[in-house]
Amino acid sequence: MGFQVLLVTGTHGNEINGPWFFQQWDKNPELINNYGIKFFKVIGNPDALQVGLRYLDKDLNRSFSSDLICSDDIKEKEVIRARELLNEYGEKGMHPCEIVIDIHSTTAAMGSSLVVYGRRPADLALAALIQSHLGLPIYLHEGDPIQKGFLVESWPCGFVIEIGPAPQTLLQAKTVLQTQLALEVCLQKISQASLRKAVYPNHLVVHIHQESIDYPRDLNGNIDAYLHDECQGQDWKPLEKGSPLFQFPNGEVVRYEGDNSLVPVFINEAAYQEKNIAMSLTKKEVWPFLDEWKMAFEEIIN
Amino acid sequence: MGFQVLLVTGTHGNEINGPWFFQQWDKNPELINNYGIKFFKVIGNPDALQVGLRYLDKDLNRSFSSDLICSDDIKEKEVIRARELLNEYGEKGMHPCEIVIDIHSTTAAMGSSLVVYGRRPADLALAALIQSHLGLPIYLHEGDPIQKGFLVESWPCGFVIEIGPAPQTLLQAKTVLQTQLALEVCLQKISQASLRKAVYPNHLVVHIHQESIDYPRDLNGNIDAYLHDECQGQDWKPLEKGSPLFQFPNGEVVRYEGDNSLVPVFINEAAYQEKNIAMSLTKKEVWPFLDEWKMAFEEIIN
Repeated sequence: MGFQVLLVTGTHGNEINGPWFFQQWDKNPELINNYGIKFFKVIGNPDALQVGLRYLDKDLNRSFSSDLICSDDIKEKEVIRARELLNEYGEKGMHPCEIVIDIHSTTAAMGSSLVVYGRRPADLALAALIQSHLGLPIYLHEGDPIQKGFLVESWPCGFVIEIGPAPQTLLQAKTVLQTQLALEVCLQKISQASLRKAVYPNHLVVHIHQESIDYPRDLNGNIDAYLHDECQGQDWKPLEKGSPLFQFPNGEVVRYEGDNSLVPVFINEAAYQEKNIAMSLTKKEVWPFLDEWKMAFEEIIN
Repeated sequence: MGFQVLLVTGTHGNEINGPWFFQQWDKNPELINNYGIKFFKVIGNPDALQVGLRYLDKDLNRSFSSDLICSDDIKEKEVIRARELLNEYGEKGMHPCEIVIDIHSTTAAMGSSLVVYGRRPADLALAALIQSHLGLPIYLHEGDPIQKGFLVESWPCGFVIEIGPAPQTLLQAKTVLQTQLALEVCLQKISQASLRKAVYPNHLVVHIHQESIDYPRDLNGNIDAYLHDECQGQDWKPLEKGSPLFQFPNGEVVRYEGDNSLVPVFINEAAYQEKNIAMSLTKKEVWPFLDEWKMAFEEIIN
């Protein structure tokens, strides 16, 4: 196996379960079976982790755009860190990695899920292998001009694992166990594929990003209504026309007036208030698995 | 009514539901019936709220010890803020308040609950009125030499309202509604008492602090085991001998070996990791209501 895998946690410094698990894994390498895969594990944003904040100057997971990284005048700590990570583990780095798995947690009830950025064939192949084993949903993030510069896009293959609901800075049994399981299954599937022993599924189920909805806001931009209690935790369940989305403190309710077939994700993720996202809406599709995905993936790991 | 009440939220900057509700209340004064009470509302730590951190230099709710506040050489932003709050709203301040209600949220499943510091008769009288209306549990914090300098101790009467589980920095319908209700009941009971129309209960149920338990730690002081999933959320339920408390990533379980009658509170409060508290243990007692509590309380508000 000539390829190497980069495992990242703590890309956001207030998502502490992954970093805690890495620390434990350092002490006891047998906590995860690595299936013979060569891998590096790294804390994405150790300075932010230290103070328990998502980031210091700028969201690290929006700092990997080439225009930011290639700039001669980098001021934000996170853009400097993005360049560091690429110099160390990027395709042309000191320890070149071909695949990256970036492990996050979220205050939304996402369960264990994958976020795939765009439709890179190799990503879809590996995601399909994970989905066929764990049954987890996949959020295909694309066509969102406001959000760019995601970490995993800077490597030939990779995606985000999102686990929730996980309160910020709270060490939580369930989140640790889900992180551990998801990581091990990733390494197992990569190993099987590199040995040409992976059994790919016939289909891939994806939830494709359509749009995001913001909280109701006042003229100063302050949030004016909270997420309705009946909407909290309803990630991955299709919204029905008329179902409650937000509630003002005076009792007034904002209802969903859109298409019956859309599926919400990242409902009430605390960190997305500043991104004007109360939830994102997706469209579920079932795609036949394409042989070219497998070929693209196996080319990377052989 | 010659007395004034101080209502505080955002004493910890990552507990955002109270401050958000205050903002809404500013816009719409009818959100709460104040029952004719003169009150001030204030954000405890606006600088920490701005960045979403519990505090900047030092926990504001441990910064009210007289030795800190009276020092000539104050460095910590929170001690400066404590002095400011006392100069403004303290007994001898510009807007003297006799009662303070300090509204918090917690990642622990405390429900709506009160924390009373020590056994000041006036506090017990008001707490008994709230308990008889809402039925909520009361944590009597005393005899804990490691923790001191709580905000409410600097006013003649007052306590903390704790609402949870509430993830840090997450706006959440349930927490807002519980905050609103608890505040209104406080103002209602204070008003009734000041008009000599309060009906005091015959008993007060208290959970008296006994000791705190820390997470298992390694030789470097790092947390080595997470709270066991079966213990998460079990606040206010008596621990049974042999019940699981913590779990190491290798599966090893630490079980409770203490007294069957103790009741845990603040289980897995994220902010208490740094205070070496995984939970506190209390002893439940039912006290007869004493007339002197009522007299002490009604003296303050008349």
